[in-house]
Amino acid sequence: MKLTILGCHSATPRWDAHPTAQVLEARGHLFLIDCGEGAQVQLRRYKVKFARIKHIFISHLHGDHFFGLVGLISTFRLLGRETELHIYGPKGIKEAIILQLKLGNSWTNYPLLFHELDDKEPQLLFEDNKISVTTIPLRHRVYTNGFLFREKIGERKLDIKATQAADVSMSYYSKIKQGFDVKNEAGDLIPNAQLTLDPEPSKSYAFCSDTAYEPNIIPQIKGVTTLYHESTFLTEHQELAVKTRHSTALEAAMIARDAKVGTLIVGHYSGRYNDLELFGKEANEVFDNVELAEDGKVFLL
Amino acid sequence: MKLTILGCHSATPRWDAHPTAQVLEARGHLFLIDCGEGAQVQLRRYKVKFARIKHIFISHLHGDHFFGLVGLISTFRLLGRETELHIYGPKGIKEAIILQLKLGNSWTNYPLLFHELDDKEPQLLFEDNKISVTTIPLRHRVYTNGFLFREKIGERKLDIKATQAADVSMSYYSKIKQGFDVKNEAGDLIPNAQLTLDPEPSKSYAFCSDTAYEPNIIPQIKGVTTLYHESTFLTEHQELAVKTRHSTALEAAMIARDAKVGTLIVGHYSGRYNDLELFGKEANEVFDNVELAEDGKVFLL
Repeated sequence: MKLTILGCHSATPRWDAHPTAQVLEARGHLFLIDCGEGAQVQLRRYKVKFARIKHIFISHLHGDHFFGLVGLISTFRLLGRETELHIYGPKGIKEAIILQLKLGNSWTNYPLLFHELDDKEPQLLFEDNKISVTTIPLRHRVYTNGFLFREKIGERKLDIKATQAADVSMSYYSKIKQGFDVKNEAGDLIPNAQLTLDPEPSKSYAFCSDTAYEPNIIPQIKGVTTLYHESTFLTEHQELAVKTRHSTALEAAMIARDAKVGTLIVGHYSGRYNDLELFGKEANEVFDNVELAEDGKVFLL
Repeated sequence: MKLTILGCHSATPRWDAHPTAQVLEARGHLFLIDCGEGAQVQLRRYKVKFARIKHIFISHLHGDHFFGLVGLISTFRLLGRETELHIYGPKGIKEAIILQLKLGNSWTNYPLLFHELDDKEPQLLFEDNKISVTTIPLRHRVYTNGFLFREKIGERKLDIKATQAADVSMSYYSKIKQGFDVKNEAGDLIPNAQLTLDPEPSKSYAFCSDTAYEPNIIPQIKGVTTLYHESTFLTEHQELAVKTRHSTALEAAMIARDAKVGTLIVGHYSGRYNDLELFGKEANEVFDNVELAEDGKVFLL
């Protein structure tokens, strides 16, 4: 999994700080997560091959998470896109986008499919034989979901040297990868484990923005490879975090610790802080593996 | 008048080329003209004191002219704006903005006043004792207006040296500025023209984007100080200009020539051209004073 941060700042765009948008590359997919104003410019700036995006997940309908969506949809039209595009987001998102396209008499020439959400329990949004995407219900001022991306366990990998050593015919390679024991040229049954290597470990990524401290999510994100959790504030502004239903860096780290995740990435910083290192320091009080999101930063999970 | 180009490219935002947005500073006002995606970032980049903007004029509802508006309106809210904001634009603009604010439960805490347009004749939108703003009906794929900003003729300016030389009391200064003849200390009537200088010449600015070649606008923009006229294409793509109801650089220059304007600024360039100098060259075939718009460029009219 490869995560590219397009923007990770809260509130309003500044010339050097962009609102939330991320691209997750996983098992051949390119998923866009949130789409603040200017996300399409950031996609170009960081040379993401964004025509490959087929699924866009919008956490909630505050402007800093979706005002860039209608522009990106329009750009796809201008670039002659034909592939279908799936938008997953809170109820109301379809009306907002369609109305704006209608006003400009600018219908898309590709299938634009909306999947509107209003469920308060985790919902499976997308699944194929390689990966699944599920909502993580969050607690914010408006209806909000995080998203959990979980790779499936792949096939065992053929150990070519071992099959040659065991004198197994190449015609069995497909069976071996599916997990079967097979016979060698001499007619002996060779156990599958002797002919194969473990599949690559499956990775998982949980995106949680925006949300108040919400320990209810812990069972769902238990043990994920990487958790992105908003930390809009530092503890010195705890009362603001409570009032606006955001989290502090400490709270983000408590979630990471209690969910026993591999790595925590913090972001969605309020514009009032100049020194972002303070977020890392505060989170480190209770959790070690903390990374700071930055516009343009790439994380290999 | 001071015109700052925030963006002057057509179609979709690129990291180094922004869609249409301009700021016109005139007689104490700061007018925003069109508001493509990212306009609020450009306002910050070029250090425009954008809290002073009270009037925003939107030419038409294609995304590259208004997708940045809802973000700017939201930013004003976050910055604690209290002053009223007037939005002038095609019918439908209010519904699009209000719907998005409603979805985010993000009402403005300042008065947001919409003036929706659907008239096909020029309409006076704003007027005070210093300046007027009128629509310029254009011809595009959707309902579109340009905008004509016209300063009013100011008061004559007091010529202090002349009043002293004529021995006129300071108590008459206000009368003199209003155009009256006054008596000097000796009781002689001194003609106003002897005591005053001509007011600063009043400037005018016509913004015309997007439009097909439309000579019907010529009487309305006759003799303006500066005309911004879109030139999306060069003549080599004349058939595309006709099809998409845009203009070529040559057509923009023909309008400038026939309207006898002072200076022509061309812009709204299609992304297919790398060498923008070609727009200037083509326009120069029929009109001399041609300037090329560029993101960040400032024109003093």
